[in-house]
Amino acid sequence: MVISTKVKNALEGASWVRRMFEEGEELKRLHGAENVFDFSLGNPNLEPPASLKKALKELADAPIIGMHRYMPNSGYSETRKAIAEFLSEESGLPFNEDLVVMTVGAAGGLNVVFKAVLDDGDEVIVPSPYFMEFKFYIENCGGQIRLVDTNEDFSLNVSEVERAIGKKTKAVLINSPNNPTGVVYHHKSLEALGELLKRKSKELGKILYLITDEAYRRIVYDGIKMPIHFHYYSQTIRVTSHSKDLSLPGERIGYVAVSPLCEGAGELISAIIFANRTLGFVNAPALMQRLVAPLQKNSIKTREYEEKRDLLYNALKSFGYQVVKPQGAFYLFPKAPIGDDVAFVKELQSKWILVVPGRGFGKPGHFRIAYAVETRTIEKSLPGFKEVAEKFGLKGHS
Amino acid sequence: MVISTKVKNALEGASWVRRMFEEGEELKRLHGAENVFDFSLGNPNLEPPASLKKALKELADAPIIGMHRYMPNSGYSETRKAIAEFLSEESGLPFNEDLVVMTVGAAGGLNVVFKAVLDDGDEVIVPSPYFMEFKFYIENCGGQIRLVDTNEDFSLNVSEVERAIGKKTKAVLINSPNNPTGVVYHHKSLEALGELLKRKSKELGKILYLITDEAYRRIVYDGIKMPIHFHYYSQTIRVTSHSKDLSLPGERIGYVAVSPLCEGAGELISAIIFANRTLGFVNAPALMQRLVAPLQKNSIKTREYEEKRDLLYNALKSFGYQVVKPQGAFYLFPKAPIGDDVAFVKELQSKWILVVPGRGFGKPGHFRIAYAVETRTIEKSLPGFKEVAEKFGLKGHS
Repeated sequence: MVISTKVKNALEGASWVRRMFEEGEELKRLHGAENVFDFSLGNPNLEPPASLKKALKELADAPIIGMHRYMPNSGYSETRKAIAEFLSEESGLPFNEDLVVMTVGAAGGLNVVFKAVLDDGDEVIVPSPYFMEFKFYIENCGGQIRLVDTNEDFSLNVSEVERAIGKKTKAVLINSPNNPTGVVYHHKSLEALGELLKRKSKELGKILYLITDEAYRRIVYDGIKMPIHFHYYSQTIRVTSHSKDLSLPGERIGYVAVSPLCEGAGELISAIIFANRTLGFVNAPALMQRLVAPLQKNSIKTREYEEKRDLLYNALKSFGYQVVKPQGAFYLFPKAPIGDDVAFVKELQSKWILVVPGRGFGKPGHFRIAYAVETRTIEKSLPGFKEVAEKFGLKGHS
Repeated sequence: MVISTKVKNALEGASWVRRMFEEGEELKRLHGAENVFDFSLGNPNLEPPASLKKALKELADAPIIGMHRYMPNSGYSETRKAIAEFLSEESGLPFNEDLVVMTVGAAGGLNVVFKAVLDDGDEVIVPSPYFMEFKFYIENCGGQIRLVDTNEDFSLNVSEVERAIGKKTKAVLINSPNNPTGVVYHHKSLEALGELLKRKSKELGKILYLITDEAYRRIVYDGIKMPIHFHYYSQTIRVTSHSKDLSLPGERIGYVAVSPLCEGAGELISAIIFANRTLGFVNAPALMQRLVAPLQKNSIKTREYEEKRDLLYNALKSFGYQVVKPQGAFYLFPKAPIGDDVAFVKELQSKWILVVPGRGFGKPGHFRIAYAVETRTIEKSLPGFKEVAEKFGLKGHS
């Protein structure tokens, strides 16, 4: 045996997102990048804001002695302080730097949090469709993922969460704005979720956590105000990154923030720092920690993603696709007009359109379009989407 | 229970290195950094070479579109190609980019390799004294660490390795130049180790790996030539980083390279890339990947560390300390003049000298001095080392 049995098995069901991304790279090599419409990976096409470029240039022009060295595993105090200030202002809650740990992106942050809280066999409840990497992150730490359905419009179904909670439950993980649906979980459902977790914690006599993956928090549309998840439940841990709001996904810079209202916050933070160290992250990349500190209120221009959403959503609707209009992230998750999402995705591929089958997110019969691409790419892809729609008898309108 | 039971237990035996580092930070706040002699953490005091600063400035002055985006999980092709070329030249073996995976430092790399090869209960043999984080890395992936003694001078004891190999063995992990002893494993012992692994693989009818942590590879002294571990055994995986040779420990940039002679190399690399993704590293930080690509032959001035070694080693010997003269890394690992290393470390602390007890490396009765600090710090610490030596009756000479 060359490799681990578990990994061997997992490799056989390899990530659909990555598979499509890599097939796309191949198609581009063959036909030229400009002729392939790659909606496979949530890889932001927008450049980081000018403020980030400026900060990088300032640091490169006048390097600080020791700026590439180790620092405490939780990250620079200055960066954590800046984030704590931002969170306090956002939430009205008394965050301080000791409640923040810098991480290697949100993916690193989630692994660290699961390692910190999960015992072998503990369950984490995740509304589905969902970002499939969550399963690996949870299992890496000895936990089990427990999927629950969302409503037809992909909104949070709190009754389903309630039905899933049992003695083995340790946490509920929500991801809003959501990947792959783009849906934002609204106030009412969060209120019900908070109430439920309070009640169940009491009933079960144990701490249940609400873990929130908020990587897309700043990417919201139609002027909506994102709910502050910390307001709904005290044992809340936010995991996020600057991959999307500052367009830095390759740099692996994010953080974990524990609610000031959280019981045992000090012990929890110690465990999170320990996990950050011993899982081999050690600390979030030093240079990026320094760059993002003063940029907590900066962001790429969300408006540009909103325009892309409108363009693509309106076109797909006019071709007859069934699709929920999402208020965040940069994904659409339409129904595949034929039942078999993989077969449908292959049809789109014949038009050099790359998307990911819904089964890559626990939801066969749909497909995900990551539209953080050049507007031109969207425009040029539309005839292909239309042709395939017509082929399968969708009724368009103009 | 606020946190995971395993983590709770581990926290109680927290890292001595980090504990000392953090006590040091506190002492510095109280007494001023210039009055505390902090030898606790292997945190290189040398700045990165000018070539790195120049490369950073060039990139900051003329940012490349998309340079902060996701790339394949294995890293940029250009970077892996540059490393493969360097490795081919170094070893005479036909490395190519597909045998290299960029990682979040060597700590990330080790976690990724263990995840890729270990099944639950598999054993990894590690010569001791050793870097204690290895234990966590192995256990994170369901493995068990199996320690074996080194010789009196901390050189590799291959008979001890042989005695430890059994049905559960999956790999031997060596770290040369070694943390905490600074010792370099020499040609003869590596030859014996390679022969042993070949013979045992055959006997056991399974693949055994030699995993080499080579983070200190370029930090060697006395004009010695580091052996190429790839030459001794075909199933060899090198894990390394630019933390020490380019002085970038806070940036988390390293790589894993699989021997071109390795059976099943393709499958192994797939597993390593999968682990890099699903353990939440996703990819090594983009900017650093770009910066280190053209710097594969660059390095900080090792001579400066050598001078520090000489200064400190000669002084300690003259005070009567028993200490092996190491040929690499930036650590000394002397015998504590009293049996109890923790008590001895406390004595040094009373002179504001911070070192780490040997039990933090599986070897009570010794202590580790990380001398990658300002030469002035070493000079000013010497009277303290001397006083404590005299207090415990060591016989110095001048």
